[in-house]
Amino acid sequence: MLFSELINNLKLGLSELQEYNIASDPEINSAASLDLAHKKQITFLEEGNKFGFKLNQIKADAILLPDNKDLISVVQKRNLAWAVFKYPRLAFAESLDFLYPKVKYKEGVHPTAVIGLDVEIQSNVYIGANVSIGNNIKIGRNSIIHPGVVIYDNVIIGEASELHANCVIHPKSIIGDQCIIHSNSVIGSEGFGFVPTKNGWRKMPQTGIVILEKEVEIGSGTTVDRPAVGKTIIGEGTKIDNLVQIGHGVKTGKNCAMASQVGIAGGAQIGDNVILAGQVGVANRVKVGSNVVASSKCGIHTDIDPGQVISGFPAIPNRLWLRCSSTFKQLPEIAKSLKELKRNLSK
Amino acid sequence: MLFSELINNLKLGLSELQEYNIASDPEINSAASLDLAHKKQITFLEEGNKFGFKLNQIKADAILLPDNKDLISVVQKRNLAWAVFKYPRLAFAESLDFLYPKVKYKEGVHPTAVIGLDVEIQSNVYIGANVSIGNNIKIGRNSIIHPGVVIYDNVIIGEASELHANCVIHPKSIIGDQCIIHSNSVIGSEGFGFVPTKNGWRKMPQTGIVILEKEVEIGSGTTVDRPAVGKTIIGEGTKIDNLVQIGHGVKTGKNCAMASQVGIAGGAQIGDNVILAGQVGVANRVKVGSNVVASSKCGIHTDIDPGQVISGFPAIPNRLWLRCSSTFKQLPEIAKSLKELKRNLSK
Amino acid sequence: MLFSELINNLKLGLSELQEYNIASDPEINSAASLDLAHKKQITFLEEGNKFGFKLNQIKADAILLPDNKDLISVVQKRNLAWAVFKYPRLAFAESLDFLYPKVKYKEGVHPTAVIGLDVEIQSNVYIGANVSIGNNIKIGRNSIIHPGVVIYDNVIIGEASELHANCVIHPKSIIGDQCIIHSNSVIGSEGFGFVPTKNGWRKMPQTGIVILEKEVEIGSGTTVDRPAVGKTIIGEGTKIDNLVQIGHGVKTGKNCAMASQVGIAGGAQIGDNVILAGQVGVANRVKVGSNVVASSKCGIHTDIDPGQVISGFPAIPNRLWLRCSSTFKQLPEIAKSLKELKRNLSK
Repeated sequence: MLFSELINNLKLGLSELQEYNIASDPEINSAASLDLAHKKQITFLEEGNKFGFKLNQIKADAILLPDNKDLISVVQKRNLAWAVFKYPRLAFAESLDFLYPKVKYKEGVHPTAVIGLDVEIQSNVYIGANVSIGNNIKIGRNSIIHPGVVIYDNVIIGEASELHANCVIHPKSIIGDQCIIHSNSVIGSEGFGFVPTKNGWRKMPQTGIVILEKEVEIGSGTTVDRPAVGKTIIGEGTKIDNLVQIGHGVKTGKNCAMASQVGIAGGAQIGDNVILAGQVGVANRVKVGSNVVASSKCGIHTDIDPGQVISGFPAIPNRLWLRCSSTFKQLPEIAKSLKELKRNLSK
Repeated sequence: MLFSELINNLKLGLSELQEYNIASDPEINSAASLDLAHKKQITFLEEGNKFGFKLNQIKADAILLPDNKDLISVVQKRNLAWAVFKYPRLAFAESLDFLYPKVKYKEGVHPTAVIGLDVEIQSNVYIGANVSIGNNIKIGRNSIIHPGVVIYDNVIIGEASELHANCVIHPKSIIGDQCIIHSNSVIGSEGFGFVPTKNGWRKMPQTGIVILEKEVEIGSGTTVDRPAVGKTIIGEGTKIDNLVQIGHGVKTGKNCAMASQVGIAGGAQIGDNVILAGQVGVANRVKVGSNVVASSKCGIHTDIDPGQVISGFPAIPNRLWLRCSSTFKQLPEIAKSLKELKRNLSK
Repeated sequence: MLFSELINNLKLGLSELQEYNIASDPEINSAASLDLAHKKQITFLEEGNKFGFKLNQIKADAILLPDNKDLISVVQKRNLAWAVFKYPRLAFAESLDFLYPKVKYKEGVHPTAVIGLDVEIQSNVYIGANVSIGNNIKIGRNSIIHPGVVIYDNVIIGEASELHANCVIHPKSIIGDQCIIHSNSVIGSEGFGFVPTKNGWRKMPQTGIVILEKEVEIGSGTTVDRPAVGKTIIGEGTKIDNLVQIGHGVKTGKNCAMASQVGIAGGAQIGDNVILAGQVGVANRVKVGSNVVASSKCGIHTDIDPGQVISGFPAIPNRLWLRCSSTFKQLPEIAKSLKELKRNLSK
């Protein structure tokens, strides 16, 4: 694709093209990071990116930039093709869509797929090899079911959703439109609910369901449990990374982002736009307000007000935690110093 | 089901019905939590439940209660159907079994299932689509093997056990009676054992086996490794949540409960009735005594005496940890205060 | 196998046999740990092993020892068969290979396997039941693909590699020679990359690839993500345990070992011979130098110099951390003591 063609495509996107120079209008066939890009590749730079100083050494033929005169001046001198965007990272994302078009899956059900009774498969759906689909299922148009997926009974899959290989969808789950369920994840499995008795643990039947609202993404190997009664709900636009545990009856708001290995215990309620970094844990029934950001390995045991930035275990405000954990390193000195002081005073 | 019918069923259970009033004997078709239950639903309340005060607002037609005169008085006035149990949570669990009867799977092997040689399938076993079963296998009566399950050679599955979709059982594993293996879990995979050599890591062959005793439950995406020699054993009645790692040669006692994302390293020995909360880690070869409770994210590096309640990393008694982590927040002040004191004294 | 036969085999290995006595040349049919070994079994002991004192009680017929006169003397007196090695653990590993020969898989493609177009399957490859292989694939000779594996398009599998049941290999992944991919792991799934926009998270297309160099081992349920552009690379001989997350664009060096539930965030760079214990987290783009050892639950947020032994969160030198976490337990006393001191001084 010529750089000029790419630019014409990007004009239709949301990244807000502001200015550009096609220079020699190079052929662009792929994309790479600033340090690795070579001939026929496009790259990008964001405001504040620490690689900015290397701009006079890059080997890419084209670059997407923020509105920064110094940066433009460097690439202009080198006669590279360039374009300035309000959102250069978004422009890069849009460029990747043009340079690496998605694989088209042909409508149809692979002959090795096993389809139950009362299954409604809408138009333009692809169902791959060795898929197993139960009874009373609806699969919305344009959805893609990759090989090895297992769908239990009474499940609804929305439109334009993609279920990657070997993921499992349990009974009565409702998957919204434009959801992506990655490989080997499990949606709607039984919550971990047991009643202690004198004879040991007695299973609390898990009769509830899981609902993924539209545009939800569930990472590889992630598990989303259904509750004893009621619903586990992942809100619209929420993105969940790999190996995350979502307990029974959890409710998340819209547009949250949960990094890998996060664990959310049963009944926790997460607001909108919450960001949980890697390996964060949220305890049973805790309420995390909207716009909270929890840094990695944070352990959230009590309700958190909206907008807080928290860290540590138990979670405290991030700034306080930074000071505390910095002082933690001085603990042996502090203890020694205090001891000396006491000794001196008791003389 | 009429409330009176449900009560008659519950009389046969273990929840110890003490008193009840069928009122208008409402039709009950499902169950819900106290705050969400509506007409034709049953709900429950435990002693000490903070939702108790809402009892005069609930919309359920029936409720299971603890023996508490005040609570009974409220529901009696509202003419709801009610019943008092010694164990109301257990009564609710039993009610769910009656209101949501389990799916019955018809005896038979799906034509797409692949069955090896010397496979003994006892009566009333269901084997789903695309299952792959190796050679020299025994599957006990009334067991259910869901689609996509893979069983390697020389495996024994007990009676009335259920293997959920896409789980994998490795060679020589022994699964007891009434076990539940959830989706995408892996039983009996090779332990992580390597010998350091000058040429890098040399695999220690993992020739041992995994044994799940009866009534064990293994969560979705959980992995239970086999050891180099000997056995990994999960004791009778132990319940393990999703995404848990059980290392090679681990032995757990009976009736333990391990929450999601717990990791138990190779050779650790866990007593009976041990409760490990989410994201707890147990180090290699550590012994954890019976009835220990470890709170979430706890890191257990040394042997723990029976009955301890522990927290933190390294794990210390929970009460001490609560005081220490509370003081942790004051560390910057403590450091500052100490500094001032020294400065003042040195004047 | 007679002990003498085993010894003859071990002479050809790398464990460096130094001395031995076949005694009654017992038949050895299996192996066990020192405390559990019985008749017809072999066991081993390493220098410094705390079980050494039990040597006069063991029931094994044969033992592999380090060069230690006292130990030899005990087993010699008991007329056990014994052999001394420079590397007794390695000798035990080699013995297991002889005593428990690997299952041989017959060349061939199971009739239920689904094979795409342009698939090159080299000699002596085994492809099991219900495997699904996409288009444009190369599978090197002597490789084993277990049941239920899904391989997307454009993948290369090297020679003598083994893919365990239900693992998933995503498009364009390159798996080296002699790799082992354990059950239900996911290689090459989409990295967790999103661009924040006023309409919520916008997916950054993940167009890069994953490369596993030769002799890499990936644990059960582990996920290795591909990046937006470029490569995620796992270096030669690196061994990764179960339920580990490797983020998009991570590069690891050679011969690393990563224990279960480790999480490495996007773009992190790990040197050679790095050891990460269980549940360690490494933050985005951090550089961890060669030969670093991080103890369990460690949180690595900043670049770490080669050779460091680190612990805690944030990670600090292990020795300092040991002293700090020991003092942590005294925090309430320290706070109290300081308070008293201040009170006394202000009198």
